[in-house]
Amino acid sequence: MAGLEREFHRWLKQQNQTPISAEKNVNVKLGVGDDAAILHGCGGSGIVLATDAIAEGTHFVLAQHDLELIGRKALAVNLSDIAAMGATPVAALLTLQLPSGFSIEQAQRIFLGVKKLADEFSVAIIGGDTNRWEGPLVVSVTVVGHEFCSVIENETAAKSWRIGGAKVGDAIVVSGSFGGSILGHHLDFTPRVHLAQHLIANYNIHAATDVSDSLSLDLSAMASESQLGVEVELNQLPIAAAAIELAKTSERTTWQHALSDGEDFELVLAVPPDELTRICNDPVCQTLLTVIGKFVSEPGFRLLDDGSLIPFDVQGYSH
Amino acid sequence: MAGLEREFHRWLKQQNQTPISAEKNVNVKLGVGDDAAILHGCGGSGIVLATDAIAEGTHFVLAQHDLELIGRKALAVNLSDIAAMGATPVAALLTLQLPSGFSIEQAQRIFLGVKKLADEFSVAIIGGDTNRWEGPLVVSVTVVGHEFCSVIENETAAKSWRIGGAKVGDAIVVSGSFGGSILGHHLDFTPRVHLAQHLIANYNIHAATDVSDSLSLDLSAMASESQLGVEVELNQLPIAAAAIELAKTSERTTWQHALSDGEDFELVLAVPPDELTRICNDPVCQTLLTVIGKFVSEPGFRLLDDGSLIPFDVQGYSH
Repeated sequence: MAGLEREFHRWLKQQNQTPISAEKNVNVKLGVGDDAAILHGCGGSGIVLATDAIAEGTHFVLAQHDLELIGRKALAVNLSDIAAMGATPVAALLTLQLPSGFSIEQAQRIFLGVKKLADEFSVAIIGGDTNRWEGPLVVSVTVVGHEFCSVIENETAAKSWRIGGAKVGDAIVVSGSFGGSILGHHLDFTPRVHLAQHLIANYNIHAATDVSDSLSLDLSAMASESQLGVEVELNQLPIAAAAIELAKTSERTTWQHALSDGEDFELVLAVPPDELTRICNDPVCQTLLTVIGKFVSEPGFRLLDDGSLIPFDVQGYSH
Repeated sequence: MAGLEREFHRWLKQQNQTPISAEKNVNVKLGVGDDAAILHGCGGSGIVLATDAIAEGTHFVLAQHDLELIGRKALAVNLSDIAAMGATPVAALLTLQLPSGFSIEQAQRIFLGVKKLADEFSVAIIGGDTNRWEGPLVVSVTVVGHEFCSVIENETAAKSWRIGGAKVGDAIVVSGSFGGSILGHHLDFTPRVHLAQHLIANYNIHAATDVSDSLSLDLSAMASESQLGVEVELNQLPIAAAAIELAKTSERTTWQHALSDGEDFELVLAVPPDELTRICNDPVCQTLLTVIGKFVSEPGFRLLDDGSLIPFDVQGYSH
């Protein structure tokens, strides 16, 4: 999220405090400002809605990237948002702005990329909009899902994660590894839907988001929404092989790539200390999750190397 | 809807017959191919989803059109789709592809145009996505609504209109007037949400759609989805003042404008004969509705002038 988007986002949140607003609308459980929005649904379980567009030159380059992978990514980034809520995706709407020179076969390849990933997650593509125009390709997806529901003694309880809600002392737990996604991972990553479903069903997690802008930016947003700061241990960061590859020629360190590159689409979780051992011992999580630091009361993002503070500017991928 | 979009749409519908498909997904009540899609919701009442994007050069011209009106239109076209289902809009997601030169004030003006119309219909803006890029402006909106529900003797019954389902002998009933929307009405029309809610609550209507491509094209789609044809009476067509204005210099007749111009965003309804008198006598409808012809068994679009066939090629606004 670039500067203008952040500023616009802040302004949007203020608009929602005006008389007829999302915050006061009886249908709205969660409005602007999280990974997804939630409407009230059946028996307390909310309808979760995420929307994200990817565009030529910003999120992909037509001359380099396969159309199926572009379609796949447009859905995947939205499924990642749904995962960050701990929700279950159900259906998707696909909107295409097709360059005037595009053939129907090209449009079909984009759709097939969306469809293949949709099938993996039993997501139905239920509609959309297709327009040809003189501008570059834009692929926009809206995903509808439902909140996780537990049934205990015939009582249904719905829950989903928020970006805010971390408490002092919560561990920062991340899935996967970070950095260098530009070498290809930003197109072929698997959204953490199944992991999120497993975690929300079995553990008490205080807050969550997914990494699109960068680990440092999205973690900072989590901290600031929780009115807390974070301390991240440099030597705990799971570094992607692609970050090591990039660092050979980029004049940046592997950990700078891991913290700043963005589009990793991994989960970042605030896990209370009393849940941590159980999560770390869970076979499903052992190969996927890493503790990289903790939430602290003092605001800001601090990077530590064996206890010593390392200078670091929070930054990410502006898109 | 242009040629490529229609062809792509047909192909999309076929895709949904593959194994894991929208048609077979238990969550899906209505998939691709109507004015909106429907997911199963509470107590049989469906969650209605419409999405439509408007783009510079196709649906508006930045140099001519006010940004608030552009934002307003992006929501209005979606509310028109929701109205064509007889559904009630609840919330909207707004996605902006902003040209790189845009200021935050310009983004805000688009949002305020969306918000003003959203407030009129108690629609909450619950989220979206904002990106700056090197391409032209695209404003994409997804609207979520719910199906109309009636409660009779404690039984809840949901219903919504489809584009198909007209029967032989049904009257073709339209709201408002047609033609010349390019002179301004395509930006400032009021979506027929309230009229649709009144009609679905009080009358048995066999099929409905809204006019975006053109009265002749959208009515033809309705006929073909119903496996029927239509006969339209030339002298019954409600002609917009703007169509009369355009016809002065366009070398086309007023009725050619009314049938072919598109972006009128009026309702077209298939009304069974036994409901017709009651609807026509309804004070809410008297000034708004006009009977323009009827559905017949022979496929095709026939235009009649006092019973004589007038040659006419079905056409519309390709966008």
